[in-house]
Amino acid sequence: MRDVSVIGAGMTDFGDHGDTLVKELIADACLEAITDAGVDRDDIGFAAAGTFVNSLFDVQGKSVGQIGLKELGIDGIPVVNVENGGATAAQAFQEAWRATASGEYDIAIAVGVEKMQHMETGPMMDAMKHAGDLELEGANGITWPGLFAMMAQRRMHEYDVTREQMAQVAINHHENARKNPRAKRPLELSVDDVLEASVIAEPLTFYECCPIADGAAAVVLASESVASDYTDSPVGVLATTQISGTYTADRDLGDAESTRRAAELAYETAGIEPDDVDVAEIHDAFSIEEIVYVEELGFCERGEGGSFVEDGQTRLDGTIPICPSGGLLAKGHPTGASGLAQICEIVWQLRGEAGERQVDDADIGLTQVPGGFVNTDHGSIFVSIFGEA
Amino acid sequence: MRDVSVIGAGMTDFGDHGDTLVKELIADACLEAITDAGVDRDDIGFAAAGTFVNSLFDVQGKSVGQIGLKELGIDGIPVVNVENGGATAAQAFQEAWRATASGEYDIAIAVGVEKMQHMETGPMMDAMKHAGDLELEGANGITWPGLFAMMAQRRMHEYDVTREQMAQVAINHHENARKNPRAKRPLELSVDDVLEASVIAEPLTFYECCPIADGAAAVVLASESVASDYTDSPVGVLATTQISGTYTADRDLGDAESTRRAAELAYETAGIEPDDVDVAEIHDAFSIEEIVYVEELGFCERGEGGSFVEDGQTRLDGTIPICPSGGLLAKGHPTGASGLAQICEIVWQLRGEAGERQVDDADIGLTQVPGGFVNTDHGSIFVSIFGEA
Repeated sequence: MRDVSVIGAGMTDFGDHGDTLVKELIADACLEAITDAGVDRDDIGFAAAGTFVNSLFDVQGKSVGQIGLKELGIDGIPVVNVENGGATAAQAFQEAWRATASGEYDIAIAVGVEKMQHMETGPMMDAMKHAGDLELEGANGITWPGLFAMMAQRRMHEYDVTREQMAQVAINHHENARKNPRAKRPLELSVDDVLEASVIAEPLTFYECCPIADGAAAVVLASESVASDYTDSPVGVLATTQISGTYTADRDLGDAESTRRAAELAYETAGIEPDDVDVAEIHDAFSIEEIVYVEELGFCERGEGGSFVEDGQTRLDGTIPICPSGGLLAKGHPTGASGLAQICEIVWQLRGEAGERQVDDADIGLTQVPGGFVNTDHGSIFVSIFGEA
Repeated sequence: MRDVSVIGAGMTDFGDHGDTLVKELIADACLEAITDAGVDRDDIGFAAAGTFVNSLFDVQGKSVGQIGLKELGIDGIPVVNVENGGATAAQAFQEAWRATASGEYDIAIAVGVEKMQHMETGPMMDAMKHAGDLELEGANGITWPGLFAMMAQRRMHEYDVTREQMAQVAINHHENARKNPRAKRPLELSVDDVLEASVIAEPLTFYECCPIADGAAAVVLASESVASDYTDSPVGVLATTQISGTYTADRDLGDAESTRRAAELAYETAGIEPDDVDVAEIHDAFSIEEIVYVEELGFCERGEGGSFVEDGQTRLDGTIPICPSGGLLAKGHPTGASGLAQICEIVWQLRGEAGERQVDDADIGLTQVPGGFVNTDHGSIFVSIFGEA
């Protein structure tokens, strides 16, 4: 396997794109990534594209890679379309990485997209059930907010996580999003604002659940043999791992075992320790997730996630800034795009191009995203680590 | 890239599986492939799964790999879910191949599935439009039968392909299917039966259009380093290529340029000539396709596909038997499974295990399948070649 770098990144604003077509969103994100990379269309040998539930939303939902890239005049190459729930875009990234790392192709593009802002909540929630076991979990009424509300309840019971600590996650991410012009919903929030908002699934309130959005994100990857032909600042892919959840009937609903395993494998592959990570983008679809994942990713000890957040360690000026982009909670969550938007943010952070939300001395970045909720262990988990090429 | 072999194959019957769940179809096909390969569940390092439009059919349509494999107790490993129209299963095969050939994993499983028999024609045809450009081709009324009817009209005009030649394709495939206990609809047909049946899209009649079906198919792949630990009869993957169509405004609707390019690349990679191929499974969703593809795959000259079929060259005892399994026309076409069912048939043919439909001296086999109909050049084309490992 060869070393691979990200040499270009691009994404649309996340929000309501009105009548813009799915293929136009793809083309916009890809064009920015291609321009950033300085590659020609003909240089691209392979593409991977992801969308999650578009086909249930009366917009283009299949073959999105071929149809989106054609908008830019890119055709004739192999294009794989992938899906993996909320981790769909991370899956696209990993397929493009594999095609490059394997030695088959020198340059590949990965893109993720979702258009969902036009959908009503009911049909949208029904669509989301496909990421779990429709006949088992879906038929028994599990929803995403419900699942993570159970995680929150369990963590509150077991480790005395407080509602104020959870609210702080949302407050921090909105504070970051106010420095990100691409974010959908940057707000100035107080603890009271968060805790007094409508309850979505006890205890999670409106501001603790991420908003949907339309959007697309893309990156261009290059093998070590050609990366330097295009850029002086390649961002190396030090590790990219995927681990599916394991099934046990006595699963602790507060546990995120598969994130722990995916992270351990990624740290080992990259040859680094959790302390080496300078900035991370994680899956913060619900506030409780940050408190759980900072533990599972090794940034603090088990049971200390709540106080870690409370102490400001995950803020922009903390020891390990989490979601400088604003994350899913404040940037918005177009499901099939978010995993690549995380990678765009890490690329910009490591290149020192993140503007007002720039993390100081950001040399190593990490992304984490789960897809699906098979048997409540969050389906598959992707962890990737980026650093000096 | 390492050499890779198929060491196990399995598929469900294709037909109406009633209340059987998608995950149960996946488990049935995978269990047969795993048992055939003689691998333990824990030996499998990577999985790729494909489904096309299940999510629009009120059955499990996302994360099908994780959810299906869990039925067999296979969890904790990376699972990629893919989609590429009618070539979805070929895409799953290629991802599993890449993960093995790259050196990352020694053993991988690929599975494809579709459950569609319960659907009404209208919603099903609407769902299929997602494989094309929904807002361009779909909005302008292109359907699959319509597209291939135009291909037939063009070929009849340009090369004097006759209706009797096209009917013979259906007759041949049904004759093969009568020797395949897994086929959905094996019939004894005459030319009159085919030509006097209801017209679906002029000139294609009912028997010239493949029936839908429920079903799943799977194969187990192994790198050269471990294949001999499991089997004395590995089937080598000599080449597996994917090429997306190219867009030109003056496209000849009778042309299948991308099949030609994908085949040329596959022959070059495998180091063989078209004449070396002993048996092939192609995408025969519509009768005209065989007449076009035998030309584009190099089995006969341009314009001679009709007489090639008429002369019996594609029958079981011909120079290049096409679709000994009965093909999509007579075996049935569960969209997300067919690409792997083709590979299962080639594996059984090369191992001499195809029973009454065994092709004599079958040493090299080929599969071809298109996915999507972007700009009428049939989206992406997959061609794979199998032979001695």
